[in-house]
Amino acid sequence: MAQLLLLQEQEFHTRLQEVRRLMESQSTDALLISDNANIYYLTGRVFTGLVYIPVSGPVIFFVRRPVNLTGDGVVYIRKPEQITETIGLNLPARLGLELDITAYSTIGRFKAIFPDTTEITNASPLLRDARSRKTPMEIDMIRTSGIKQERVYRRIPHLYRPGMTDLELQVEIERTSRLEGCLGQFRISGDSMELYMANLLVGDNADTPTPYDFAMGGEGLDPSLPVGCNGTIIREGLSVMADVNGNYTGYMTDMTRTFALGSLKPLALKAHQCSIDICDMIAAKALPGTKAKELYELAEQYVREQGLHEYFMGHKQKAGFIGHGVGIEINELPVIAPRSRDILAEGNVIALEPKFVIPGTGAVGIENTYLVTATGLECLTNAPQQIITLE
Amino acid sequence: MAQLLLLQEQEFHTRLQEVRRLMESQSTDALLISDNANIYYLTGRVFTGLVYIPVSGPVIFFVRRPVNLTGDGVVYIRKPEQITETIGLNLPARLGLELDITAYSTIGRFKAIFPDTTEITNASPLLRDARSRKTPMEIDMIRTSGIKQERVYRRIPHLYRPGMTDLELQVEIERTSRLEGCLGQFRISGDSMELYMANLLVGDNADTPTPYDFAMGGEGLDPSLPVGCNGTIIREGLSVMADVNGNYTGYMTDMTRTFALGSLKPLALKAHQCSIDICDMIAAKALPGTKAKELYELAEQYVREQGLHEYFMGHKQKAGFIGHGVGIEINELPVIAPRSRDILAEGNVIALEPKFVIPGTGAVGIENTYLVTATGLECLTNAPQQIITLE
Repeated sequence: MAQLLLLQEQEFHTRLQEVRRLMESQSTDALLISDNANIYYLTGRVFTGLVYIPVSGPVIFFVRRPVNLTGDGVVYIRKPEQITETIGLNLPARLGLELDITAYSTIGRFKAIFPDTTEITNASPLLRDARSRKTPMEIDMIRTSGIKQERVYRRIPHLYRPGMTDLELQVEIERTSRLEGCLGQFRISGDSMELYMANLLVGDNADTPTPYDFAMGGEGLDPSLPVGCNGTIIREGLSVMADVNGNYTGYMTDMTRTFALGSLKPLALKAHQCSIDICDMIAAKALPGTKAKELYELAEQYVREQGLHEYFMGHKQKAGFIGHGVGIEINELPVIAPRSRDILAEGNVIALEPKFVIPGTGAVGIENTYLVTATGLECLTNAPQQIITLE
Repeated sequence: MAQLLLLQEQEFHTRLQEVRRLMESQSTDALLISDNANIYYLTGRVFTGLVYIPVSGPVIFFVRRPVNLTGDGVVYIRKPEQITETIGLNLPARLGLELDITAYSTIGRFKAIFPDTTEITNASPLLRDARSRKTPMEIDMIRTSGIKQERVYRRIPHLYRPGMTDLELQVEIERTSRLEGCLGQFRISGDSMELYMANLLVGDNADTPTPYDFAMGGEGLDPSLPVGCNGTIIREGLSVMADVNGNYTGYMTDMTRTFALGSLKPLALKAHQCSIDICDMIAAKALPGTKAKELYELAEQYVREQGLHEYFMGHKQKAGFIGHGVGIEINELPVIAPRSRDILAEGNVIALEPKFVIPGTGAVGIENTYLVTATGLECLTNAPQQIITLE
């Protein structure tokens, strides 16, 4: 047998308290949570089952699989309909379910378990909100991922061999990442996003629009997975952008660096420096309380002044954001986008990726993951930012 | 610009006709499809948007991203609410949506677009049903994946180096697979399943229960992803089970082989032979029209006769199935399980994985992918089935 709760008691209560504070502000009587990422947040492990959180009273962990968990509040079930046997008569009037993630059929099944519940509220934004402000323990795990990821990035120039394709270099980066301890999965909220552990874009392939809502595109190797590398051979004058999954601890950092064989044309060098400048400008300006959209506007205005707008966040197809929260999943809050209503808070962890696509060269720019502290942004991904020469 | 429809005209019409036949049998007037796997099935590519399929009349492809698609029926939208401008007044009374996959909030948004629709039907089982009977073109793609996967499996013994951990060997298998053309993604329907490109189980780690509904478990490297290898060193007397993603074409084969350093104990050898025997027995018996559950019962009865039931499909935790459909996703129809109502049909592609966990040794057994033909099962994964010695 193994203890279900892998979080320290104090850590569990810190997270639970924050979730309950938000429940009270929305007059929600109980939450029923089934999403892997949210279960991991609440317990420190993943199981198949449901976490039932009443606004007061003990939390109940309804487990279907694995079979070997034990601890306070652990109740085994074969099907969700059994949970009312445990919850008893004290059923919630307002019940929060993860409406933005959970399938319609599954929500219907949950609703039928609580026929007397007067209202279903949406627990998805509530959990996204709570998870956006990381605890010191979560920050430590993200920090560790950043240090390990940095180590991998420093080795990338040495993985290059003349004549390599984008795929061949990507495979060596993925191998190096895995041997360094990268868990190899990019957790993304929602069904519609699909991505590799490493995403390598060489030359004009970066200008191929992708269906996915990522900052950069790429044709991919097959129409069934139209994103990322497409077999382009790395040649002089082409940029090599590496955007690699930094999930070493269950908590990710997101980081991009640009490499090149020989030197790139002046326009590409200017755009790359502009990306570094934007990160520095935002890092100097952002504080708890800063509006996310102001950071986007700051970047956009600077790009216009530099005359680089045509290439900013894509060329044939543009992404609608320059940054996003990161943690258990790669698409957390806050979102740094023109219509974002998010406001930066202490403990947010954000990835900033002001990138450019220069026709004939490829993608340039950087991405760093930052912690929002009381005094400003702290960079957690500290590999060299300049364009790095492949040897 | 690029043509949206990557399927040949004839292939598109074959699939569309099958979907419409099922729509008519359920009196559904139109389908609105947004899932990546279903969009890929219907068009041969993935895009962000919606496919609108009326029971008669032209299919409309509402595209949000990428920006460069063209062709008959292609209409660009920024948001789903715009689709009625194109569909016009001929709105469906009974509309099919993917209720088993699509988030509750998204379905709510779709329903609001069709306020006069009298009934929402569930398009998920309909598409699963259609996709379970593969066309000759799909079968060719699966066949190609099988041949490439076989090539990778034959190289696994040569990837082993003394002292390797499960992770280290897994990383080399993943690298080899990717260089052979494996797309590196395991498409799984639903949010709750997470898995690696390759899953390597060495020794007693195979007996660690996992939260995921896979045939075998494994502790994993971190509580955030509790499945697969855990850092066990490969030693004499331990089995090494490799279950690797065979997605080379957008259509997968699923295959498992067991390796060992030196020889395994007699009980493990007996169980491994039992797994091969079960595959052979089922391959000799299964025909279009055979009930899936009868194949499960056949396997279970044979296992009991052999006195191996304690170890069958897991030891501490057991999986509830011995086989599953495979194609664009790894969990397609039919399901070979005790309560399955599925009946085998010509064109089904099924992975059979009667496996055992032997305490002290690890997981043994095989997995093959078979095509259901008019005259019986044809194996598409033809690497040697015996336990293979690591060199």
